[in-house]
Formats: sequence, structure tokens, C-alpha cells
Amino acid sequence: MALRWTSLLLLMQLSGYFSSGTCGKVLVWPTEYSHWMNMKTILDELVQRGHEVTVLASSASVVIDPSNTSAIKFEVYPTSLSKDDFDGSLMQLVHRAIYDLPKDTFWSHVSQIEEIMWEFSEVMRKLCKDAVLNKKLMTKLQESKFDVVFADAVGRSTTFYETMKKADMWLIRNYWDFDFPRPYLPNFHLIGGHHCKPAKSLPKEMEDFVQSSGENGVVVFSLGSMISNMTEERANVIASALAQIPQKVLWRFDGKKPDTLGPNTRLYKWLPQNDLLGRPKTKAFITHGGANGIYEAIYHGVPMVGIPLFADQPDNIAHMKAKGAAVRVDFNTMSSTDLLNALKTVINDPMYKENAMKLSRIHHDQPMKPLDRAVFWIEFVMRHKGAKHLRVAAHDLTWFQYHSLDVIGFLLACVVTATFIITKCCLFIWRMFATAGKKEKRE
Amino acid sequence: MALRWTSLLLLMQLSGYFSSGTCGKVLVWPTEYSHWMNMKTILDELVQRGHEVTVLASSASVVIDPSNTSAIKFEVYPTSLSKDDFDGSLMQLVHRAIYDLPKDTFWSHVSQIEEIMWEFSEVMRKLCKDAVLNKKLMTKLQESKFDVVFADAVGRSTTFYETMKKADMWLIRNYWDFDFPRPYLPNFHLIGGHHCKPAKSLPKEMEDFVQSSGENGVVVFSLGSMISNMTEERANVIASALAQIPQKVLWRFDGKKPDTLGPNTRLYKWLPQNDLLGRPKTKAFITHGGANGIYEAIYHGVPMVGIPLFADQPDNIAHMKAKGAAVRVDFNTMSSTDLLNALKTVINDPMYKENAMKLSRIHHDQPMKPLDRAVFWIEFVMRHKGAKHLRVAAHDLTWFQYHSLDVIGFLLACVVTATFIITKCCLFIWRMFATAGKKEKRE
Repeated sequence: MALRWTSLLLLMQLSGYFSSGTCGKVLVWPTEYSHWMNMKTILDELVQRGHEVTVLASSASVVIDPSNTSAIKFEVYPTSLSKDDFDGSLMQLVHRAIYDLPKDTFWSHVSQIEEIMWEFSEVMRKLCKDAVLNKKLMTKLQESKFDVVFADAVGRSTTFYETMKKADMWLIRNYWDFDFPRPYLPNFHLIGGHHCKPAKSLPKEMEDFVQSSGENGVVVFSLGSMISNMTEERANVIASALAQIPQKVLWRFDGKKPDTLGPNTRLYKWLPQNDLLGRPKTKAFITHGGANGIYEAIYHGVPMVGIPLFADQPDNIAHMKAKGAAVRVDFNTMSSTDLLNALKTVINDPMYKENAMKLSRIHHDQPMKPLDRAVFWIEFVMRHKGAKHLRVAAHDLTWFQYHSLDVIGFLLACVVTATFIITKCCLFIWRMFATAGKKEKRE
Repeated sequence: MALRWTSLLLLMQLSGYFSSGTCGKVLVWPTEYSHWMNMKTILDELVQRGHEVTVLASSASVVIDPSNTSAIKFEVYPTSLSKDDFDGSLMQLVHRAIYDLPKDTFWSHVSQIEEIMWEFSEVMRKLCKDAVLNKKLMTKLQESKFDVVFADAVGRSTTFYETMKKADMWLIRNYWDFDFPRPYLPNFHLIGGHHCKPAKSLPKEMEDFVQSSGENGVVVFSLGSMISNMTEERANVIASALAQIPQKVLWRFDGKKPDTLGPNTRLYKWLPQNDLLGRPKTKAFITHGGANGIYEAIYHGVPMVGIPLFADQPDNIAHMKAKGAAVRVDFNTMSSTDLLNALKTVINDPMYKENAMKLSRIHHDQPMKPLDRAVFWIEFVMRHKGAKHLRVAAHDLTWFQYHSLDVIGFLLACVVTATFIITKCCLFIWRMFATAGKKEKRE
């Protein structure tokens, strides 16, 4: 469950002044890779509405590129980690999570995951320390008088709860198309799919390739922003399955061209995923199950074949499978036939398309677009200097208060004391009578 | 807690057909008095958007008047209760709830309330039976092919849970300005204050009276749609308190003019409450704490003196008191001084006005107006033929499944069986050795 919470953005109100209609100053603490792409959608919208957005980025940032952007400001702080150190250590962790996890016993699997998460949080802690202990930076930030901090909340559970307690508002990258209904708190706002847009036109070569698929249509295949390569053996298993379907396939892949690659499959270093999923010819999406990709498939109503790799991906695919919009295969153990059958199922069984369209209809039929909702509540926190009226009192309780153990303890103490006193009284009275009885006998 | 749930409206999807853009057929099961006024706001909006709205009303209906309305249709069914029977029995119950509740012990108080609730639900049950057993009516309704049932869910707890399980959507007359933050379900939509509007102009006589108050302003006083009268003694206690404040007072009162009535107080059989509360000259609102009145005060940012009478009113006032926007006095025991002090406090201590304005700002700063939200989700249920994706699985569980007693029971059974088998085995082995030992000894 802890991993599901990686899909959260949080807001904390600061001391600055912001009145309705005026524009505010937003300080951003981002995360890398898909999380950054996702967050940037909201930052671009804030900038467009006239807010001043400053992103705190380390000199080792990989995806966050201060030179190549719009009106977003960047405050880059130095860190002893180099870009290669940072990217390398993250990639090594991801590689271990996909290939090296022991499958034999449940507990060795869990302990390996715990170790990986620990190493990951150590890297993040180093970055965090380099920022917080940088006095010059901190003074500059304090003097800038920001209205709100907008942070991406990844990963250690102990400090995570502390963070959660302090946040005024939570923007959750989720909605009831993707998630199962369950109770949620008033300061949780569901903004899943806020980055999705109607499809734009494709580059000419790609458009021609898509059109050449005729009535059979195309299949889009990507394992996300962190994985564009894999072992030769796995690539061949996948390529030979793809070669056997009548659809054309666009595969995001940056490795050696597999020997079994069919003429119907083209490799790309990068895919305009949202634009491809939005084409009527797209029949299926082969995905690792990252939340961004899944939301693009929901937005456009495309059924999925899930090949989850790590983190929240297996859980995400399990959701789509339970909602009848995806079939799951295992990356390490699947054969060509497994992948082929999965693809045939989601493409030929109309139930999968119907279910994907149902999720799409639910997604589009909201009172407010997810991106507008995100921006509304960020501005709300600035306008009202926080949102204390939405914070449940549970955050201010200790664990024993939360479970009413103090009340139960007090009541138990009362019962024990009363029992003790009554017993003592009874014994005293009994002894009195007994003594009186003996005296009488003597007399 | 059960009483708070009277503030609910629920939606159930029926078999009819409704597609986006088309207009739907809505069947309404209403409740009387303030509940009806509140619900009618939504019905008027639905009619205005082109939906066909049919209200199922009994021939004994008191406030629901089939002759005097807009485009809302009425299906009146005969009931053996007369208008006077119905109104009389309800009024008698309310009278008992206000004046005759024993204050001496907690349990006699609770048992009286239970008895009153029981009698009330018996009256409602009679009406319900008269409708459901009316074959002609039921056939007509079935043939009408409604898209959705829109019902006001009042009061017995056992059948209430059954109703709740069936509803697709709940429109809750509440919001985080009024309520305290707590978890809620995805098919709960908070529409508190949906009936509130900007103030319209007042009748001339009333406007002149309000203007004549000068800088001191006015106080608005109403005990709601069910109470317009009280005992002579109570009326005099109240009137003498009102006579001592510098504000002018507009009091909704239909009884004998109290002897102690001051020249600053005018009695009215009816007040345009929302329009009065929306005047800048209104300094305070004396209210019984009905949810409708409280929401009008929140909407316009007016501090309150609460005189709660029955049902959810004490709880409502407790909310406003905790949020610093109201002072509470007790209807049966208050003296003139108590009421006078309460009025002076909310009028002269600026904290009360500030807190009321804070609630008002929270109320107005929502992504969507409550009435629009109500209509959106009613139309959603019609468009999607229900909202199963928002229904928590807990509704389909029995109480022992909900508390995981079946799982715990199974695990316990496993432990007991394992212990039993291991013990038996040990005993068996021990006996074998013991027998072998004996044999050896004999040999």
C-alpha cells in the first residue's frame, strides 16, 4: 500500500500574503522522471495564470532541465552528486528491482525491496540535506516570501506520515475510473489524468505508418520514461510475438534491434504516446503500468496489455485487470505465446474495448477538469493561507489517542480501582463480623 | 449521530434510458416542511434544464401543494390520513420533543426520544404503505419508465441502512464550512447551502423598518417552518430580552403579542429570511438551528444565537458554536438576561462576525456551486444508468465479513485444529514409547 502513495502531490501554506485575484509565489520541490513530467503540467498552467513558479532543482537533476523551459524559474543548488552518479544509482536500483529480485521466497523478496527503497531514500536524503544545509540558499528562499510549497511526496514511511500531517492539501494522481471506491479525506483532491490532452497530429513518417495499418490498426508499446532497453533474450521474445499480429506496432526501444523483429514493427527512441493513444486506429497499448501511461489509455479508451516492472506498476495493472480493461503478463517469465495470446485477447474480445471506453466516459464526465481542479485548490491554499478547516483532527493525535487507548485505559483503571476498593471493603466487613463472632463465642 | 443523517438526499438509478444531452424523467419521494423547501430548489433547477420531474405526494401532504407550482408534475395518491391528522400528529410529536422531554435522567430522555421517533416513523410507514399497496398507482409509475428516483431519506435505522446500500449517489446537505473534516465516500456529494441565493429586495414596510435601525442594525429571529408559536411565559422572557438591545428586531411569531414586547421589535407571520440575512444591516440571527437557516447565515456571514429545539438542531448549533460563529442558549431554562447576554456577545465581540465571515468565504470559494453540483450528479446517474463504480464494496458485505470475523474465525479454526492434531500426535507417540517401555520391563 505504501507505494500507492507515491502518486501524491502535497501543498503547504507559507507565511506570505495572497489575496483573491492577485498572483502568488509558488515554491516547488519536485521528483525526477515521470513524476516531474506529470507535475510540470500543473506548473505550466500556474505560470499561464500569472503565478510566479520557482522550482528547487539540484545540480544533479536528470530530467529537470533548467535551461529548456517556459516561464518557470529554477533555483539550482549544488550537490556533491554528479548527474551521472545520480542517474546511475537510480538506474541501478531500477535494474535490480526488475531483474534481480529473488522470486523464491516472499520474505527474501520483501527484504530486497526494502533494501532498494532504503538506498533510494538515502540518495534523496543526500539531495535534501545539500539543500537544507545550504545557508545561502535557505536565506534566499526565506527572503523570497513564497505563498505555498508544492511538493511531490516520494517513498520513507516514518517521515512520510510527518509530512502528511503538515500538508494543507493533497492532490492525488488518481480518480474513481482508476481506483476502487473507498473513504477519503476532505483535503484530498483527485486529479488523476490531469496531464492528458486530446491527441495532436503525428510526425509525417509516423502518421504514414499508422495509416498503412488499414482496418487492423496499430498497437503502441512503451515501458515508460525510465526503461528504453532490455536484455537481448527478452527483446527477441517480445519481437517474435509482435511479428505474429496483423496490426502495425510502434515500439519505444533503444537497444540492439532484435533478430525476430517483424516487418510490421517499428522501433522508436521516443513516442508521442498521448497523441498515438488518441488515434482511432490504436487497438491496444502494451504498457509497464506507470500511472501516467495508464491514464492516457483511460482518457482515450484504449485496452491494455500490462507488463509491470516495479514500484506501483503491478498494483496499477491489477486495477486495470479487475476493471476488465487489461490483461497482465510477467516480464521475466512470459513466452512469445503468452504475449501473443494477451494481445489477441484485448484486441479481439470486444469486452476489453467496452470496459476501456466505460472508464473513459467516467473520466471525461466530471464537473471540472482534473487540471483545473488541481490549480483551483493550489490557489485556494494561497487565498485562504492554508486549509485548516479540511484537516482531520486525527493528525494531531498520538497513536494511542487515535485508537482511544487512553480512554480505554482510564476506564479500565476505574473498573480495576472500583473492584479493588469493593473487594477490600467486603473483606474488611467480613473480618469485622468474623472477629465479632469469635468474641461472642469466647464470651 | 443517526439524526445527522436526516440531512441526506439519495439517488437511485432505474431501468429507463437516458443519453447525454437528452432530458430524463425523475421520480421524487419527498418529505414535508423544511426538507421539501430544500429539495424543491433542486427540482426547480432540474425542470429549468428540461427534465420531467414527477413528485409522489400523499393526499395528506401539508407543505407540498400540487396546485401551486411551476412545471413540476404531481402524482397525488389517496391516504386514509387527513391533512389535519397528519399535520396534527407531527405537530404533537414536535411539541413533545420541545416541552415534554424529561430532563431528569439521561435514559428516560433517550427512551422518550426513541418513542417519538417510533411514532413518527409509524406515520411515515402508513403513507409509504398506502403508496406501495396502491396497485393502480404502482402500474402507472412502472409504465412511466423513470430514469432515476430522487428521495429524501428520513430517520428508522434498520431499514435506513438497507436504503443506503441501494442508493447510487448521496447528495448531502452539508459542506466543510458547517461540518468537521472526516472521511467520506466517493458517492457522497456535499451540497450544503444549495438553496441560498443573493438577497432580493424586501417588502417596502420591512425595508423601511430595517433602514430605521440606523448604525445599530437589525436582528432577525425565527424558529423555523414548524414553530411559529410558543407558551406565553417563554414569549415574554424572549420579548423582554429583545426590548433591551439597541438593534431593531424582526421576529417571526404567530401567537398572542407578548406584554413585554419593546417598541424596537416587530412581529411577522412570515419572514423572507434569506433576503433579510443578506442585508448588510443584519447584525445577528436568532435561530432554532435548522440546517437551512444555518446555511443562510453562513452564506451571508451572519453570527448566530442558537436556541435549538429538537432533532439535529442541538448538534447543528454545537457545530456553529465550536466554529466560533454562535452562542447557544436553552429554550426551556433561559432567562431574559441569558438571551440578552448571548445577543450582546455575538453583536459586540468582533470575533463572532469574523468567524461567520470566514465560514462564508469557505462556502463561496468552491469549484462549483452546490446547486450545480447536485444537478450534475443527478444527471450523471441518469447518463450512466447508475454509478456502480463509486459504491464501496462494504455495502455488499455482511456485518461479520465487514469486520473480517469470517477470516479471523477461519484462521482461529486452523490454529485450533493444528494444536489439536499436534497434541494428539504427541500423546500417541508418548503412549507408544510408554507401552514399549512397559513391555521391555516385563521381558
